[in-house]
Amino acid sequence: MDFDGIPGLTSAINASLTEFFDQQAPYLEEIGPELGPVAGALGHFLLDSGKRLRPLFAAIGYLGTGGELTPEIVRGVASLELVHVCALIHDDVMDGSGIRRRAPAIHKQFETLHEERGLHGAGEQFGVAAAILIGDLALVWAAKMLHESGAPAKQILGSLPIYDEMRVELMAGQYLDTYEQALASESVERSLKVARYKSGKYSIERPLHFGATLAPQFEQEQLEIYSNYGLPLGEAFQLRDDLIGVFGDPLVTGKPAGDDLREGKRTVLVATTLSKASTSEREMFLRNFGRPDVNLGQIDTMREIIIETGALAELEILIEEMTLTAQAALKSVGITEQAASLLDEMAVAATTRTS
Amino acid sequence: MDFDGIPGLTSAINASLTEFFDQQAPYLEEIGPELGPVAGALGHFLLDSGKRLRPLFAAIGYLGTGGELTPEIVRGVASLELVHVCALIHDDVMDGSGIRRRAPAIHKQFETLHEERGLHGAGEQFGVAAAILIGDLALVWAAKMLHESGAPAKQILGSLPIYDEMRVELMAGQYLDTYEQALASESVERSLKVARYKSGKYSIERPLHFGATLAPQFEQEQLEIYSNYGLPLGEAFQLRDDLIGVFGDPLVTGKPAGDDLREGKRTVLVATTLSKASTSEREMFLRNFGRPDVNLGQIDTMREIIIETGALAELEILIEEMTLTAQAALKSVGITEQAASLLDEMAVAATTRTS
Repeated sequence: MDFDGIPGLTSAINASLTEFFDQQAPYLEEIGPELGPVAGALGHFLLDSGKRLRPLFAAIGYLGTGGELTPEIVRGVASLELVHVCALIHDDVMDGSGIRRRAPAIHKQFETLHEERGLHGAGEQFGVAAAILIGDLALVWAAKMLHESGAPAKQILGSLPIYDEMRVELMAGQYLDTYEQALASESVERSLKVARYKSGKYSIERPLHFGATLAPQFEQEQLEIYSNYGLPLGEAFQLRDDLIGVFGDPLVTGKPAGDDLREGKRTVLVATTLSKASTSEREMFLRNFGRPDVNLGQIDTMREIIIETGALAELEILIEEMTLTAQAALKSVGITEQAASLLDEMAVAATTRTS
Repeated sequence: MDFDGIPGLTSAINASLTEFFDQQAPYLEEIGPELGPVAGALGHFLLDSGKRLRPLFAAIGYLGTGGELTPEIVRGVASLELVHVCALIHDDVMDGSGIRRRAPAIHKQFETLHEERGLHGAGEQFGVAAAILIGDLALVWAAKMLHESGAPAKQILGSLPIYDEMRVELMAGQYLDTYEQALASESVERSLKVARYKSGKYSIERPLHFGATLAPQFEQEQLEIYSNYGLPLGEAFQLRDDLIGVFGDPLVTGKPAGDDLREGKRTVLVATTLSKASTSEREMFLRNFGRPDVNLGQIDTMREIIIETGALAELEILIEEMTLTAQAALKSVGITEQAASLLDEMAVAATTRTS
C-alpha cells in the first residue's frame, strides 16, 4: 500500500520513530547489556518500512479538525505504530506464527538466541517469554512516546480517553478472534463482528478519533463522520486482508503462499466459502484446511473452491460496497476538504493493496 | 503482610479497585458475552485480598510530600495494582507456573475453559493466548484507571514520566530475570542486580516516586529520600521473597512447598548457597534443583544444604542490614513525619512477612 497524499508524511512518521528508538535503546542497554537484543527486536519494527497505517489515519484525523501538523503532533500520532508492534509480536506468539515481515517472528528470534548462546532450559519457552516482554515493552514505549511527544499537555490529556478505549477494544477484539478460531466457527456474522473490532475500530476509526482528540479543538460531529467512514472501511480492509492471506503473492507479502489456509484461520472468506460450498466441496476444503503440512497443490484446490463457490467474488463486491459507503461519509461538510480528499485516497489504497 | 498504619487505607484501595472493575466488566461483556471469562479473570485479582503493596507505597509517597489523600488520589495509586496484575499473569505464562494465589494461574484457567467448552485446537496454546491478552488488558486498564481517577489533570500529567519509567524498568527487569534463569547463573552479584530491578525499583522506589509526583507539589529531595529508602528495602523485600519461595508454609503462601526449588529459580539465595557449598553439597543440591518431579524429602535435603552452608543466615543478616539502611534514610527531614513513621512500619512489615 502506497500513500503519497501528503508528501513527506510517511517519512516524517518514520523519522520520529527512529528518533524515539535512538533515545530509548541506549537506556535499555544501560540497565544491562543483556537487553541489547530486546532493543534490537523493537528496532526491527521501528526502523523498517511498515505501512504506518494507523499513524497516517491519526494524522489525517487531526488535519480534518483544522489543526496544523507540527513535529510534536507527528510524534504523537507515530506512537500508535508502537501499539501495533505490541499487537503483532503478541499475535505471532498466540498464533504460533514463525514469520513476520520476511524475518523470523520475535519469539523465533529469541529461541535462536537461546540456542546460539547455549542457554539452559527450553528454548521455545524462552522465546515466548522474551516475546511477551518485548510486546509489553512496545505497549509501554507507545504511551511514553505519546506522553513525551511535546504536544500541548491539554491536547495529550484530551486524547487519552479514546486512546484507552482503542487499546481495550484491541485486546477484546484479539480475544474474540482467538476464541472464534477455537470455536472453529462457520458463522459469517460472527466473523464479521471480529473483523469489526479487529480492524474497523482498531485500525481506522479509533486512530482517526485519536488524531481528532489530539487536536486543539474538535467537534463531536467530526468524530461521527470518522465513525461512518472508518467502520465500513475497516471491515473492507480486513476482508482485503483475508483475500491476501489466501491469494497473496509471497514475494509481495513476505509470508508463505496460502498462509491463512495452512493456519486454518476462520475468516469471513472461509465462512462465506463454507456457507456456499456443496457437501463434496466442503469435505474437500476441510480435509486440508488448517493442516500445517499442506502442500501447494492442496492449497490450490482450496483456492479453487473459494473461487468456484463464488465466495471470492462475493467478498470483492462487499469490499467495493463498503468502500463506497465509507467514501460517501466524506460528503458531509464537517471535516476539512483536505482531510476528506486524503481519506478518499486512503480508502482506495487500503482496499486495493496487495500486501 | 499486614499493614494497619492508616486505618482504612487498604480497604479504600480495595473499594476503588472494585468500583473500577464494576464499571469496566459490563463494557467488556457488551462487546461480546464471550468476554465474560476475561472480565472474571481480572476480577479474581481485583476483588480478592492481595497485599496492595504498590498502591500502599504510592499512597505514602504522596502523603510524604504533604498532600492530603482524596478518593481521586486513592484511585490513582490503586491503579498500580493493575500494572502488577499484568506482571503476575504474564510471569506465570513465562515461568509455566500453574498456581497463583491458591487458584490455577490464568493460562491454566483458560486451558480448562477450552477443554470444558470442547473448543478446537491445542488447549495449552489457547490458555497462553488468553493469558497474554488478559495481561495486556490489565496494563491498559491500569492506565485507564489512572487517567480517569479524577485527580487534577496537572498532577496526572506530572506523574506520567515516573509511571512510564517504572513500567519500562519492570519489563527490563523481567527480561533480565528470564535471561538470568536461562544462563543458570551462579553469580550472587548478578542475582542482586535482578533483585534490584525487579523489586527495588519496581515494587518500592518507583511507587513512592509515582505517589510523590502525583501530588500537587513535591521536592527533588523527597524523591531522593524515597530512593535511599526504597532501593535497599526493595532488595530486602526480594530476599525475603527468596526465603519464602523455599521455606514458606504452603498454607500461608498458597503455593506448593519449596516451589522455587522445584522451578529451579536462580535467586540470590541459591547463588549464595552454591558459592558456599562444598563439592558434595553442591552436587547433592544440583541433582534435584529444578526437577519438576522432586519430592518432599529431596526438597528437605536442599533446604538443609541452604541452612548448613550458612546461606540462610547470611540472607537474614543481609535483610536486616538493608532494612536498617532503608530506615536510616527516613531520618532526613524532607518528608512529613507521618510518612516517615508509616514507611518505618512498612519496612518491618515488608521484610518480616510470611507470604
